[in-house]
Amino acid sequence: MRWWGWGVDGHDAPLPRAAAALLRDELGMDGAHAAPVALDRVELAEPALQAAARAQLATAVGGYEHVRDDRLTRITHAAGRSYPDLLRLRSATGLTAPDAVVYPADHDETAAVLAICAKHAIAVVPFGGGTSVVGGVEPDSGPHHAAISLDLARLTGLHALDTRSQLATFGAGTLGPQVERLLHEHGLTLGHFPQSFEFSTAGGWAATRSAGQASTGYGRIDELVVALRAATPSGELTTRTVPASAAGPDLRELLLGSEGTLGVITEVTLRVRPRARHHRYDAYALPGFAAGTNALRELEQAGAAPDVARLSDEEETRLSLALASRPAATRLLRTYMDARVRHAGGHRDRPHRPAGCMTILGFDGDATEIARRRARARRILRRHGAVALGPAPGATWAKSRFHGAYLRDELMGRGVLVDTLETATTWTDLDGLHHAVRWALGAALAARGTPAMVMCHVSHLYPTGASLYFTFLARQEPGAQLAQWRAAKLAASEAISAAGATITHHHAIGRDHAPWLEAEVGPLGIAALQAVKARVDPTAIMNPGKLLP
Amino acid sequence: MRWWGWGVDGHDAPLPRAAAALLRDELGMDGAHAAPVALDRVELAEPALQAAARAQLATAVGGYEHVRDDRLTRITHAAGRSYPDLLRLRSATGLTAPDAVVYPADHDETAAVLAICAKHAIAVVPFGGGTSVVGGVEPDSGPHHAAISLDLARLTGLHALDTRSQLATFGAGTLGPQVERLLHEHGLTLGHFPQSFEFSTAGGWAATRSAGQASTGYGRIDELVVALRAATPSGELTTRTVPASAAGPDLRELLLGSEGTLGVITEVTLRVRPRARHHRYDAYALPGFAAGTNALRELEQAGAAPDVARLSDEEETRLSLALASRPAATRLLRTYMDARVRHAGGHRDRPHRPAGCMTILGFDGDATEIARRRARARRILRRHGAVALGPAPGATWAKSRFHGAYLRDELMGRGVLVDTLETATTWTDLDGLHHAVRWALGAALAARGTPAMVMCHVSHLYPTGASLYFTFLARQEPGAQLAQWRAAKLAASEAISAAGATITHHHAIGRDHAPWLEAEVGPLGIAALQAVKARVDPTAIMNPGKLLP
Repeated sequence: MRWWGWGVDGHDAPLPRAAAALLRDELGMDGAHAAPVALDRVELAEPALQAAARAQLATAVGGYEHVRDDRLTRITHAAGRSYPDLLRLRSATGLTAPDAVVYPADHDETAAVLAICAKHAIAVVPFGGGTSVVGGVEPDSGPHHAAISLDLARLTGLHALDTRSQLATFGAGTLGPQVERLLHEHGLTLGHFPQSFEFSTAGGWAATRSAGQASTGYGRIDELVVALRAATPSGELTTRTVPASAAGPDLRELLLGSEGTLGVITEVTLRVRPRARHHRYDAYALPGFAAGTNALRELEQAGAAPDVARLSDEEETRLSLALASRPAATRLLRTYMDARVRHAGGHRDRPHRPAGCMTILGFDGDATEIARRRARARRILRRHGAVALGPAPGATWAKSRFHGAYLRDELMGRGVLVDTLETATTWTDLDGLHHAVRWALGAALAARGTPAMVMCHVSHLYPTGASLYFTFLARQEPGAQLAQWRAAKLAASEAISAAGATITHHHAIGRDHAPWLEAEVGPLGIAALQAVKARVDPTAIMNPGKLLP
Repeated sequence: MRWWGWGVDGHDAPLPRAAAALLRDELGMDGAHAAPVALDRVELAEPALQAAARAQLATAVGGYEHVRDDRLTRITHAAGRSYPDLLRLRSATGLTAPDAVVYPADHDETAAVLAICAKHAIAVVPFGGGTSVVGGVEPDSGPHHAAISLDLARLTGLHALDTRSQLATFGAGTLGPQVERLLHEHGLTLGHFPQSFEFSTAGGWAATRSAGQASTGYGRIDELVVALRAATPSGELTTRTVPASAAGPDLRELLLGSEGTLGVITEVTLRVRPRARHHRYDAYALPGFAAGTNALRELEQAGAAPDVARLSDEEETRLSLALASRPAATRLLRTYMDARVRHAGGHRDRPHRPAGCMTILGFDGDATEIARRRARARRILRRHGAVALGPAPGATWAKSRFHGAYLRDELMGRGVLVDTLETATTWTDLDGLHHAVRWALGAALAARGTPAMVMCHVSHLYPTGASLYFTFLARQEPGAQLAQWRAAKLAASEAISAAGATITHHHAIGRDHAPWLEAEVGPLGIAALQAVKARVDPTAIMNPGKLLP
């Protein structure tokens, strides 16, 4: 991945002309391009790792070629891929690079690295794909004199496959596309496609409780991880590969979401299944967000949910239309929305605007089963006023499903604040939460003189509730980009926490959400996690500053 | 529940004549009846609770009527309902009764009781329905001078209902039938039916990670508990009512299966759903257990599993036939089995016996959906050689689904050792595990001169594996009943543990499985749990001797 942004060079995402015009009109984006600084202008402190420790690490991982402290390696491990991370990278200010990046080859070498780091009081930051958007891979040395990134790039591959039991064991560092490629050879799939899919790893998904775009159908990563192996400073923590157990508290669930603060997940055993032969996407227009959430709730509670379910709110629907690079795909939606004109309240000056919401439903499977499920879903949606828009919008979405992260670089280059955040709550509280977070973000950014676009979609369905995924954009506040972002993030997080929702549905806690964890799990919940950490990581070398306050 | 056995008086389960004959022939059961000793012959130590502590407890729970130490109350809290528990109760030997039984009215009173017990060094044994079959409610005072049973009988009822989000919050002490009755008033069901259903509680299910007879369709209790509230000696532990979260390790999963060793679950919020209008059971005969497990695996992995799935092995099928009290229901099966005669190896002298396995599939829902699912299941089963037996065997099973526990009293009265144990493993390891446990139980009991019947059924299906539920019977060894049982239990547990399976799929750990937990979760897994316990229960008053070594 390129050091200052998302993806690799040559895979840029130029902003469509209509989108640029819209952002200029609504946010005041001035269109000037600001390129990232040059790599050689990034200032880095000298590596603080002492020679003795460095030598021991090299011995543990098979040589100095696996203990790197060259400039590019350190910078590519200096941050994740959150908006504040990208701000700091692009401007080369406020960066802390690890003192070295260590690449163990397997579980045992990982354990050896932890032992050396514990002895020498070196912080260890586990690093899978480095795609954290919550500061999860920040090389924070905590109370220690140095910090290494422990990069899992060598712990890759399919270690075991049991097709009869539909179980596949992967090295933690295996990247998303490699997971799928290795499974495809056996006609199998994991079905886990977070937006970071191209650059994130199986172990990283487990460590952060990832959810993928098809998790409504395939399940979240916590439902797909059957067993885990982890190295900790106090030894190995491995759970048995059994389908279910009543043998006490589930330790698998203690490692899932532990974000490298307890140890390093080195291997994950995943539930896999036969790869679907067909995928079919349907799009529908709905009269509004409330009608849409009712329709999706009914689908899910009737056992009729699709594998992929997205419902954009009015604002996201309007902006998707405006930003669409293939207008043909959305012509029907435009007609629908133009026909439904509503009075828009709030902070902008348009008394009337097109109204309506779009939902995309994706179905995987064999043709007969897909046809049956689509028909059933259609019957339910129609009761809620849905109008079918055909396959084009869904196909367009599916084609560009990992595209959003690329677009962010382009927007930041044009001086636009762009970030996403997500939460989940019960169906009963969903509309109130939607309103509260939209209002909090809008108010926080308007108060700084940078009025925002705030859009949202329902991204995952559960019988008891759903997740909301917000995207917000505003003109950057020159010279105060970080403070501006912090104000928006604070407002949204407070709104989420006050509403009794979860501070994160799939981005994890990291550094950025840590202030809200106590409100969510209570002081005794924090204390229980701290007690586990103190036992398995007694010198607190594992990923300082993340997850726990 | 009557103090020496299962259920209430007047609900006896007399042994059918054919069954008595079979047990006489195959086990050497002599038919003599041994009644339990009279209640007034049970010897109990004087209550050790000091007057000051007793007075404080009475104040905390609203009066002395909620701090009981009468003889019957103490005896009914002296043991769970395992085979060794019932041995000790019937013979009135080796019993330890709690020094008092305390009945708080709500969460706050529960917290107050824990505070008083922590101050006075009194062990606390949470007690829901008292149906543990693993020694989970044993009033062990551990290092303390006294032990109370904390009975949750007053923490009952439906505290909150959110029909839109399909969430219902119950007091932890609410009994199974009451849970369903309260939900039925709203057209809802939980769908959780462990064999102990009539006498076990919502909080007990959560504390022990219970699975019910319909868990293949409705999910295990860990999938149905959305949120929990618990009182611990260090304060409250409450999880948020959200459908899913990526906010760190899942603390809900730390309380599930904690078996009262961390605190007292006082309230559970459960996922509920509309009550099915129809239930339909189908039975099939299959050529053998391996064919049966293949068929069930294919059903489950194709997403075509029923809500209830049971597959009896050859021995359980044979004995079900012999013990059937309604022969008409099994006539077809008998014909099938007689037609398939196989050579029986092993330790008994019958060169040939009827062969085949029976499976029962139960479907809940509306009539159309049930018809579709039944047809799909039938197609798959037929590919594995299944022959349809019609609805009668399933209906018979459903009618007597909670009956097994009653029958145990009758068998013990006739000098028969009878116990069950359960485990789970992957599909790949299932047949090997089945063989290993059958062999271990058979050999251990044969070695003591009491040859056994060992039967088994698959009771819950998962995409990656299934659970096995074993029942074993033998003539009791006079004067050494406990030693005889221990030998069998040890042999089976060692076989399960050595096979890499879980020591318990739904009976929990309690006292009886505690020696095998470390093999399952590793020494560091134990240490992590101990660290949590030390933090939330620093004086170790919570349920000593259970779960952790």
